[in-house]
Amino acid sequence: MLSKTLMDEIIWPAFQNPILGEFHDGAKLQVTGRIAFTTDSYVVKPLFFPGGNIGKLSICGTVNDLAMTGAIPRYISAGVIIEEGFKGEELKTIVESMRKTADAAGVTIVTGDTKVVGKGQADGIFINTAGIGEIIADFAPKNVRPGMKVIISGAIGDHAAVIMAGRHRLELPPEIVSDCAPLCDLMQKLAAAAPHTAVMRDPTRGGVAAVLNEIATAAEVGIVIDEEALPIHPPVQGVCDILGLDPLYLANEGKLVAFVPKDEAEQALNALKAHELGREAAIIGETIAESAGRVALKTAIGGLRVVDMPMGNLVPRIC
Amino acid sequence: MLSKTLMDEIIWPAFQNPILGEFHDGAKLQVTGRIAFTTDSYVVKPLFFPGGNIGKLSICGTVNDLAMTGAIPRYISAGVIIEEGFKGEELKTIVESMRKTADAAGVTIVTGDTKVVGKGQADGIFINTAGIGEIIADFAPKNVRPGMKVIISGAIGDHAAVIMAGRHRLELPPEIVSDCAPLCDLMQKLAAAAPHTAVMRDPTRGGVAAVLNEIATAAEVGIVIDEEALPIHPPVQGVCDILGLDPLYLANEGKLVAFVPKDEAEQALNALKAHELGREAAIIGETIAESAGRVALKTAIGGLRVVDMPMGNLVPRIC
Repeated sequence: MLSKTLMDEIIWPAFQNPILGEFHDGAKLQVTGRIAFTTDSYVVKPLFFPGGNIGKLSICGTVNDLAMTGAIPRYISAGVIIEEGFKGEELKTIVESMRKTADAAGVTIVTGDTKVVGKGQADGIFINTAGIGEIIADFAPKNVRPGMKVIISGAIGDHAAVIMAGRHRLELPPEIVSDCAPLCDLMQKLAAAAPHTAVMRDPTRGGVAAVLNEIATAAEVGIVIDEEALPIHPPVQGVCDILGLDPLYLANEGKLVAFVPKDEAEQALNALKAHELGREAAIIGETIAESAGRVALKTAIGGLRVVDMPMGNLVPRIC
Repeated sequence: MLSKTLMDEIIWPAFQNPILGEFHDGAKLQVTGRIAFTTDSYVVKPLFFPGGNIGKLSICGTVNDLAMTGAIPRYISAGVIIEEGFKGEELKTIVESMRKTADAAGVTIVTGDTKVVGKGQADGIFINTAGIGEIIADFAPKNVRPGMKVIISGAIGDHAAVIMAGRHRLELPPEIVSDCAPLCDLMQKLAAAAPHTAVMRDPTRGGVAAVLNEIATAAEVGIVIDEEALPIHPPVQGVCDILGLDPLYLANEGKLVAFVPKDEAEQALNALKAHELGREAAIIGETIAESAGRVALKTAIGGLRVVDMPMGNLVPRIC
């Protein structure tokens, strides 16, 4: 029974904790008040990339979805689908990354499942995580009003650029790695510094463009972004230029976009910059009453162009 | 963006409910007291089988894991991995089964995710579900004592027999279908009728043999099962005979095994038999103080044989 062996020898030991140790069909947990619940499947290709691997990503992604819901992430489930013949050493590295990232994010992997499928019936390994968090802040798009500042916690596009560069054998300098990181602590610091923050989102698939369009539509406001204010690492811009990509549409795995009242924007920015994950934070634009539902980019030469919702071919298997 | 289209046109409409309608990174839920949390990935092959499909299975499996933890299932997440080119009509049938089964089980699909991978990088569709339930009964193997009755809620092996018959092109009469069903209501009826029930398990992968061995080990009791008392549909026994399978090791997807004090066994049995899903329930054995950790089968001819933990090749992709 390959899958029992995998569980017994590789996966359980890596995740070991008292709740998981009960070995029941499910974990029994104590939670208080309102909870957030989310899930994502991870199919990133390649499985290992500068700055992380599918295991680290599978924890960060779900932790970040919880954090963006205004919740402190607490518990994670892990469902692993493995293709027969997948290397035990690689699996070990992946589950160790999961464990390490979970520890760093303050979450516990409390329940899990492993399925093995035949050679050619999957692509190495797919991981699903679901997460439960305790809600501490009531973020919602409907809280967004005209006149709010749009803040990003750092440079955009690093994750997607690293993956795409890898696939196209483009060189990136070693300091450019996936930004893959758990945002729960950053979220809490920001929420404390700017208590009237309306909403936060992590710009993953579809990038900043998708997040801004979702919020503009849901909150019925216009959003104007300043191209010159957008933090982008030059080598990432370089990859975008070569491959014809727009960094606004690139996936990030360790960034958040926050909508903050004007009078709390400075303190929000300072709180982000004081944090290891927010050193390159910037105010990138604002919400306006006009052009509700639309997002515009004020270009460096003074023009204005519409930033549409991503359509058509998004980069596949980016997360 | 294939996956956004899939979500917008097929998956969201099927699952629509107010919580999912918030379209956030995660669902916000109210729960009270202690919760159970569980996950499973479903990779069953074929995707459609007599009595169900991967969608129905993906809800039943997680609902049943919650129920066996002593919880009333409340919320489900769904992570769907789809191979490019998978037929929209089949996807529609699958998500409609998920919705229908969730409704029948009284759970709400509150959050989800869809990933599309290339042709040949998956096998049609894989589904992960995670679930949250509210704990109402404190089932645990440590509650099992010598002298308890072992009850099964119905005939064993139907699910695996149907899948295996399909793969080997064996004929089964039309009344033999997968037993795939949500057990939450049956669990509650049984817990009410036999309030000192020690533990329940659903014998999925590894079958009744795996469940009995797990409990025998965890509770440090011996278990003796009476072969003649085991309910098995004759055509299922026929498939087992042809394929050389032991029904005790076959996966079930709508059965439970309960350990009940002797003086509550009759009322437990009656409660099961009064339920649509428990009509063929039977007392199949008992726990003893001797041979702790061992499971034995009293054969029809009066012998005693050890029922080991399943080892080696379990049937792949049975759920």
